[in-house]
Amino acid sequence: MNKSCIIAQSGGPTAVINSSLLGVIEEAKKQGFEHIYGALNGVEGILNERIIDLMNEEDYELSLLKTTPSAALGSGRYCLKDFNTDSTDYEKIYEVFKKLNIHYFFYIGGNDSMDTCHKVASYFKNHAYDCKVIGIPKTIDNDLVNTDHTPGYGSSVKYIVNTLSEIYLDTHSYEKGRVTVVEIMGRNAGWLTAGCHLAKLSNTPVDLIYLPEKAFDVDKFLEKVATIYNQKKKVLVAVSEGIKTANGEYLLKYRHFNKTDSFGHLQLGGVAQVLCEIVGEKLNLPVRAIELNLPQRCASHIASLTDIEEAYNCGKTALLKALDGETDKMVVMNRTSDYHIEYKLHSIESIANLVKLVPDEFINNDGDGITDEFISYAAPLILGESNITFENGFVRFSNLKKEIIEIK
Amino acid sequence: MNKSCIIAQSGGPTAVINSSLLGVIEEAKKQGFEHIYGALNGVEGILNERIIDLMNEEDYELSLLKTTPSAALGSGRYCLKDFNTDSTDYEKIYEVFKKLNIHYFFYIGGNDSMDTCHKVASYFKNHAYDCKVIGIPKTIDNDLVNTDHTPGYGSSVKYIVNTLSEIYLDTHSYEKGRVTVVEIMGRNAGWLTAGCHLAKLSNTPVDLIYLPEKAFDVDKFLEKVATIYNQKKKVLVAVSEGIKTANGEYLLKYRHFNKTDSFGHLQLGGVAQVLCEIVGEKLNLPVRAIELNLPQRCASHIASLTDIEEAYNCGKTALLKALDGETDKMVVMNRTSDYHIEYKLHSIESIANLVKLVPDEFINNDGDGITDEFISYAAPLILGESNITFENGFVRFSNLKKEIIEIK
Repeated sequence: MNKSCIIAQSGGPTAVINSSLLGVIEEAKKQGFEHIYGALNGVEGILNERIIDLMNEEDYELSLLKTTPSAALGSGRYCLKDFNTDSTDYEKIYEVFKKLNIHYFFYIGGNDSMDTCHKVASYFKNHAYDCKVIGIPKTIDNDLVNTDHTPGYGSSVKYIVNTLSEIYLDTHSYEKGRVTVVEIMGRNAGWLTAGCHLAKLSNTPVDLIYLPEKAFDVDKFLEKVATIYNQKKKVLVAVSEGIKTANGEYLLKYRHFNKTDSFGHLQLGGVAQVLCEIVGEKLNLPVRAIELNLPQRCASHIASLTDIEEAYNCGKTALLKALDGETDKMVVMNRTSDYHIEYKLHSIESIANLVKLVPDEFINNDGDGITDEFISYAAPLILGESNITFENGFVRFSNLKKEIIEIK
Repeated sequence: MNKSCIIAQSGGPTAVINSSLLGVIEEAKKQGFEHIYGALNGVEGILNERIIDLMNEEDYELSLLKTTPSAALGSGRYCLKDFNTDSTDYEKIYEVFKKLNIHYFFYIGGNDSMDTCHKVASYFKNHAYDCKVIGIPKTIDNDLVNTDHTPGYGSSVKYIVNTLSEIYLDTHSYEKGRVTVVEIMGRNAGWLTAGCHLAKLSNTPVDLIYLPEKAFDVDKFLEKVATIYNQKKKVLVAVSEGIKTANGEYLLKYRHFNKTDSFGHLQLGGVAQVLCEIVGEKLNLPVRAIELNLPQRCASHIASLTDIEEAYNCGKTALLKALDGETDKMVVMNRTSDYHIEYKLHSIESIANLVKLVPDEFINNDGDGITDEFISYAAPLILGESNITFENGFVRFSNLKKEIIEIK
C-alpha cells in the first residue's frame, strides 16, 4: 500500500513545534509511508502548491528538528472561510490531495489552527473523500481545552523562569534596587505568567504576579509596590501583556500605535513600560521594564526535555491514530497522578476557538500572586534538559533543503 | 605568614564576574591565605563594615560561582571622592584593612571601578600602607583599553547571537514578516551590537547593524529598510541603545522619562521602539521592537566557556601578581595569533575612565554593518559551553551564607 501524508504548521512558533513534526515523520517512515509531504507556511502551502517531500531530507538534519525552534516548514495565519460561503480553497486542497494521493493530513497548531483542521475535515466528510485529519496541539499559551497542557508551554515556562531567576540575581545585586516589571506573553490566559511562580523553587521568588484572568487595580498595585519596596528596596513584578482594568480596558491606551493581526487580535506588548511609567510618576521610584518578547516562544536552547518528548509523542500519536482510522480529532494529553502522560484523541470541534483560562484555585485572593497548588501542576513540565549540538558557539539548527515538488 | 586579602565586585553584573571571584578565592586558598574577605556591595561594604569571610563558605557552593551570574558579593556604584578633597572614606578603608590585617585588595569591575581602584592604591602609596591593589576587568561592554577584550563580553555576545538566531528563525517563519528591531546594550561603544554579525556563522544573518560609533541617519535607515523589505518581506535590525544622530542627539527624546544614574549617565533603552514607530509611520510596515535588556548581561545559562575560563584566570592572575608585589595595576589579556591568551598587568591609571570604541576597520562604509575582520576577532570568544548543574529544571546557582564578620 502506497500511503502518503501531508503535514503543516501554523500559528505562533514554539521551541518544540518541530519536535512534533519529527514525531510524525519518524513514525510515518516506520509505518512505511511512501511520501511525507510538508506544506510550507501552513495551509497556504497547499493552496499555493508550495509542498516539499520530507523523504528527500537527510536524517541528520531531520534529527535536529527536535531542538530547532520556530516552524521548520514555515508558519502561516491564513483563515479558511466557511465552505458553505466560499469553497474555492477547499476545492484546491481536494485537488492537490487527490493528485498526490494524500489521505492523511496533520496540522500542528493552536486554537485558530484547530478551527482550520475541523473545517477541512468536515469538508472532506461532506464530499466523501477519505482523508484522516488530525490536529496536533501547539501553543506556548497552554490555553487549549480538554488537554492537561499543551506542547510548547513547558519550554516557554522553563525559559521564562530561568531568565527571571537570572534577572532576580541581577536586580538583587544592588542594595538599593528598582521596581522591575517583567512582561510575559498571554493575551487572555495567564498560564505563562503564572509559570513565574515556579521561580520560588530556585529561591528567586517573584514578588507580584498579575494575570489577565483578574481585573488589574492600579491603586492596589501601587500600594503593594510601595510596601514591598519600603521593606526590600527592590520589587520584582511579573505581568501578562493582556491585563485589563475592571472596566475591561487594556493598560495600553498610552501606546503610540496599536495594530491588529489578520485574526483581528490587538497587538499587545508594552504594558510593563506603562506600569513603570505609572510607578515612576506616582511613587517616584527607580524602575525598569523588561519585555521578554519573542525569545519566550523560540528559546530552544533552554527547552524542557519533558516538553520536547511530549511534543514528539503527540506527533507520533497523531500518525498512529490516523492509521487507526480516526479523523477530525486533536491529540490531547491526560495526566495520571504520578505524572505519567497518556496520549488520547478528542473531538476537534469541542477544542477549536475555545480558551482555557487559569482556574481560580491557582490564583491568590488578592489577584497578585499564584498559589502553591499551581507548582504541583507546572513543576513537572519544565524538567529535563535537551541534548543540544553546538557548532561555533551556536546551537546547531536543522537545515532542511525544502525543494518544492512538482505537482502533476 | 598570615596573609589576608579582600575582594569586592562593582558595576553592572555579568555572567562571569563570579568566575573571576572564584579564581581569586581558589588561588588564595592554594597560596595559604588565612582569610579571604569579601566586601558586600563593592567598596561600600568596606565603609559599612559589611564584610564576610569566604573561608566560611562550603566548597560546593563556591564551585558553583563559576556558572552563577550577577555579583555574588553584591555590586555597588559608589564613587569615591578625590582624597585631596575629602579623605573620610579612605581613612575608613585604611582603618578596616589595618584591623583585619589586609594587605591585598582585589576589585572586579569596569572603567568606573578601575578609577576607584586607582584612587585607593594611590592613597595607600601616599600613606605608606603596604597594600597591593589589583583590578580585575569585568564588563560586557568590552570597552576597556589595553586589553584584547574583557571578561563578560564573550558570554554576553554568545547569549545575544544565539537569541538573535532564534529570533531569526521565528521572524522568518512567516512569508510576510515584519521589520524587527533588536536593541542591544552599549552606550558609547558598540562591541555588543557588533557581536550580532557573528550570527552569520549560523546562517541567520542580521540585515542591518548600527553602532554608536557612527552617526545614525534616519533617512538612510528608512531607505535601507524599505529596500530589504521589498526584497525579502522581512528585515532584522540590530541597534545599540546609544546610537546618535549626526548632531549628537540620542534618538530617545520621544521617551516619557529619562533618568540618570549616580555617575550622571543617562539611562538609555527604548531606541528600538522609537525606530519601530518611525518605520511604522513613514513606511507603513509591520514592526516589532525587542529590547534584550538585562538578560544579555546575566544569562549564564548560555555563557561562553572560553569567557568563564578567562574570567577565572584573570582572578587567579590578580592574586599571583599581587603576591609578586605588583599594585595599582589591572589584569589584561594579550592575544597571540592562534588565539592563545597571555595574562599580564597594565597600569590602572592608563585604563580607568577611558573607553575603547569599535575601530573603523570593523565597521562597513555605510555604517550599517560589520566587516568580516570582526569575525576573526570575536568568533573565538563565544566558543565552548559550560557544564551547568540543573535542579528542578533551574540552573542551580551558588548560594553563599554571607555571614557578616565582627570587626574588632
